[in-house]
Amino acid sequence: MFNKRNLLLIIGLGLLVLLLSACGTQKAASSDKMPTVNAEEVSTNIIVPHQGLNQEPTPLKMERDGKDVYIEMTSQITDIEIAPGNIYKAWTFNGEAPGPLIVVEEGDTLHITLDNIDPGVPHSIDLHAVHTNPEVGFADLAPDEKGTFTFPTSSPGVFMYHCATEPVLSHIANGMHGVIIVQPKDGFPTDDEVDQEYVIIQNEWYKYNDLDDMTNGVPSQVVFSTKALHEGQPNTNGTTTAVKDTPLQAKVGDKVRVYINNVGPNEVSSFHVIGTIFEDVYIDGNPANHFEGMQTVMLPASGGAVVEFTLKEAGTYPFVTHQFNHATKGAVGIIEVTE
Amino acid sequence: MFNKRNLLLIIGLGLLVLLLSACGTQKAASSDKMPTVNAEEVSTNIIVPHQGLNQEPTPLKMERDGKDVYIEMTSQITDIEIAPGNIYKAWTFNGEAPGPLIVVEEGDTLHITLDNIDPGVPHSIDLHAVHTNPEVGFADLAPDEKGTFTFPTSSPGVFMYHCATEPVLSHIANGMHGVIIVQPKDGFPTDDEVDQEYVIIQNEWYKYNDLDDMTNGVPSQVVFSTKALHEGQPNTNGTTTAVKDTPLQAKVGDKVRVYINNVGPNEVSSFHVIGTIFEDVYIDGNPANHFEGMQTVMLPASGGAVVEFTLKEAGTYPFVTHQFNHATKGAVGIIEVTE
Amino acid sequence: MFNKRNLLLIIGLGLLVLLLSACGTQKAASSDKMPTVNAEEVSTNIIVPHQGLNQEPTPLKMERDGKDVYIEMTSQITDIEIAPGNIYKAWTFNGEAPGPLIVVEEGDTLHITLDNIDPGVPHSIDLHAVHTNPEVGFADLAPDEKGTFTFPTSSPGVFMYHCATEPVLSHIANGMHGVIIVQPKDGFPTDDEVDQEYVIIQNEWYKYNDLDDMTNGVPSQVVFSTKALHEGQPNTNGTTTAVKDTPLQAKVGDKVRVYINNVGPNEVSSFHVIGTIFEDVYIDGNPANHFEGMQTVMLPASGGAVVEFTLKEAGTYPFVTHQFNHATKGAVGIIEVTE
Repeated sequence: MFNKRNLLLIIGLGLLVLLLSACGTQKAASSDKMPTVNAEEVSTNIIVPHQGLNQEPTPLKMERDGKDVYIEMTSQITDIEIAPGNIYKAWTFNGEAPGPLIVVEEGDTLHITLDNIDPGVPHSIDLHAVHTNPEVGFADLAPDEKGTFTFPTSSPGVFMYHCATEPVLSHIANGMHGVIIVQPKDGFPTDDEVDQEYVIIQNEWYKYNDLDDMTNGVPSQVVFSTKALHEGQPNTNGTTTAVKDTPLQAKVGDKVRVYINNVGPNEVSSFHVIGTIFEDVYIDGNPANHFEGMQTVMLPASGGAVVEFTLKEAGTYPFVTHQFNHATKGAVGIIEVTE
Repeated sequence: MFNKRNLLLIIGLGLLVLLLSACGTQKAASSDKMPTVNAEEVSTNIIVPHQGLNQEPTPLKMERDGKDVYIEMTSQITDIEIAPGNIYKAWTFNGEAPGPLIVVEEGDTLHITLDNIDPGVPHSIDLHAVHTNPEVGFADLAPDEKGTFTFPTSSPGVFMYHCATEPVLSHIANGMHGVIIVQPKDGFPTDDEVDQEYVIIQNEWYKYNDLDDMTNGVPSQVVFSTKALHEGQPNTNGTTTAVKDTPLQAKVGDKVRVYINNVGPNEVSSFHVIGTIFEDVYIDGNPANHFEGMQTVMLPASGGAVVEFTLKEAGTYPFVTHQFNHATKGAVGIIEVTE
Repeated sequence: MFNKRNLLLIIGLGLLVLLLSACGTQKAASSDKMPTVNAEEVSTNIIVPHQGLNQEPTPLKMERDGKDVYIEMTSQITDIEIAPGNIYKAWTFNGEAPGPLIVVEEGDTLHITLDNIDPGVPHSIDLHAVHTNPEVGFADLAPDEKGTFTFPTSSPGVFMYHCATEPVLSHIANGMHGVIIVQPKDGFPTDDEVDQEYVIIQNEWYKYNDLDDMTNGVPSQVVFSTKALHEGQPNTNGTTTAVKDTPLQAKVGDKVRVYINNVGPNEVSSFHVIGTIFEDVYIDGNPANHFEGMQTVMLPASGGAVVEFTLKEAGTYPFVTHQFNHATKGAVGIIEVTE
């Protein structure tokens, strides 16, 4: 009798322990929605050859010969601090996430050499700026493989580029996205009015390399980064703090032009600058798509725009996506305006 | 021995009780997605000085002296019935949510006095219609503080205004949003065709003052409200029933103009009127941004539009966001057309 | 003493069993987010008269007499394989989901006879292409009731049609949506340049007839279908495989025009074709709403567009919504380009 009872007790308590751990997992899962990081979970999603890997950023190489532009890029694994203390072992172009800014002119021919120095995963580059057979122009490169791809450009805009290797969502959400600006050969009608030009990119982060979270969850962070269009400008990764720590600069009365793209991977953006109105907007960065006097510009996932606005007083002007759940998750940057 | 066994039993059952309550919480959390209200939970999110507080709505004061417009507003805590039987202790402008409609003309100078009569929380007013240094023009006012802010207007549109005090998402989602229309000084090209004019606002409600739900959850209610642009028009708060209970009115053959803004805080809107087509659309309410023949207009969070359409037969015309999960949560209004 | 202890043990273990089953439910609920099908759950949501029902598709009948177009449609219950092995007992127009394509000309008068052969549920048809009193033109038909509705058309576009019977979300999400193209009487400015024309529709699927999942969940599948605009073109339902198994066809150098509509019911779309740029875009399919050089077009729920692009090299061009969580759930199609 006592033994049976003891056995029951042991079974009962054993079940309790199992149950507690199950419910513990359950609770962890539900609190995962919060923008916190569980180091253990993250590590289980790291691809084996990426364990402990942190490849130094590789500066973008770009050389022009007439209308031919030769660009050297890498795909590589590099730690990015996406929020204070939160290190994401990002899949990147050149060790940046978003990748390095590329600026060319309408009519240029691009010769892009992509060196996949990621030892674990194939990668590729898909540029929204070009016409190509995707099977050839955006082809996969195996680990340690290098390839050169040639594309003419024919249309101006603020285009997204990204890795297009399956599963595409994993590659983009892990950091493989960036912006290529194709400058219009006849310029914008408002070129003469513009005093400052900046590039801003919006992207989301999810749980580390977790395709289910990327597919069914909500972003852990939504962030802005800036890429240096002119010398001396900040060049940051997509983090919750970067554009607050290194604000964009303007003078009172400046007309500021922002080239923006929302690289997603999943969410649309309602881009807005607090304290001003967009006098001129060119949807997708094409001079033909002109809007005036907008408070907020709607950007689809992978959509771009050129927005121009005047900052009339000295002060601190935040920019946000006005989808404020996303602003709350980090999508706030700063423009500092001085006399 | 017996005592030990008793002890084990007591521990086991104690754990069971703890576990049951934990799992109970868990289940409650998962069913919270339903648009229901748990009074107990709500009360735990009420800021202490707001407990039991229900400040009478304060009529908007607006006086014009030439091009100068003097506006008196309050920030205050007022109960709003957001769905039948569901009282939300809203953070409001003037006791309305959305706040009172402001209509001015392009070129006017606004002198806005905001009296923060909320005893518990600082507030501010950020208007998308103006240029200002946000630190000064949109500055926080402490409880019981009053401030006056002066802004020139320069661009026509259907602009959002909102409280911009941190955490901004809490202030907007708790009800501090509204619309300011800046009428274009040269009018709209279709002014002569329009017979009726209405103002409609879309907003979402979340669990009471629950920043985590506002940030990571889905809205409990998505609603329309109307604000009286002309005398005798309905002036409602954002509830699931208001615009069904007090339909907008038109006559057969009328061309109806709607000034609409989707104040969010998080969701975009696909605004559509059943039984008609938008003949003319002005994105963000600027006459320069003209579209024709649209079935549905895409509004970013904080985006506005002027849409115009003809109602050719007597009857009942619902308007919705065609994101039908949101329509299902309340975003349906009615236009009644009579002979 | 022993009895009491036994009693406590029995209570304890009984509670454990209850608890385990509760936590089991909990885990099932959380894994429901995955795009899998639980046959048992599905069957519980089938309306009784639909049990075992699978009505043969009914070909659309359409006859023209001058400017009068006589159209015969059904509302019916038909199995659609929305993903390999995943049969959805869809609520449909004519046994297709999306329903059959309707193409008319601006100025035509439509005479639509809808025969509701669904024995269990009332249905209706709401066309975004027309002006009507919704209570009359879009009126409900009881099971086994037939009705004829007459509407003039007056505005060109790529319009959504759908069942508008309550709860509307259930009817649309269960499959009752489709596209009606109203061709502009003066054509598009780019008519002479176009070599191929296709119709593509985006829609989402949710858990079977589960209004809560439709209202608060995320889609299980997001899919494209094609509808034959010209003879010999594929005519598919909205499945994860249809447009991959029967790719659209073009020749090198062809300018391809796509008429697209995102019928939702809930999500917006960021429509993009990989390897090309949209040279010309007409928002909602109206020639007046012309954009150029777009990488991605933003479609609200129920929004349409005409997009035109040139495929310069032989190859395989996928099209997606660049909201890549949705592409991951199936929203990928293929255009095959040959010499």
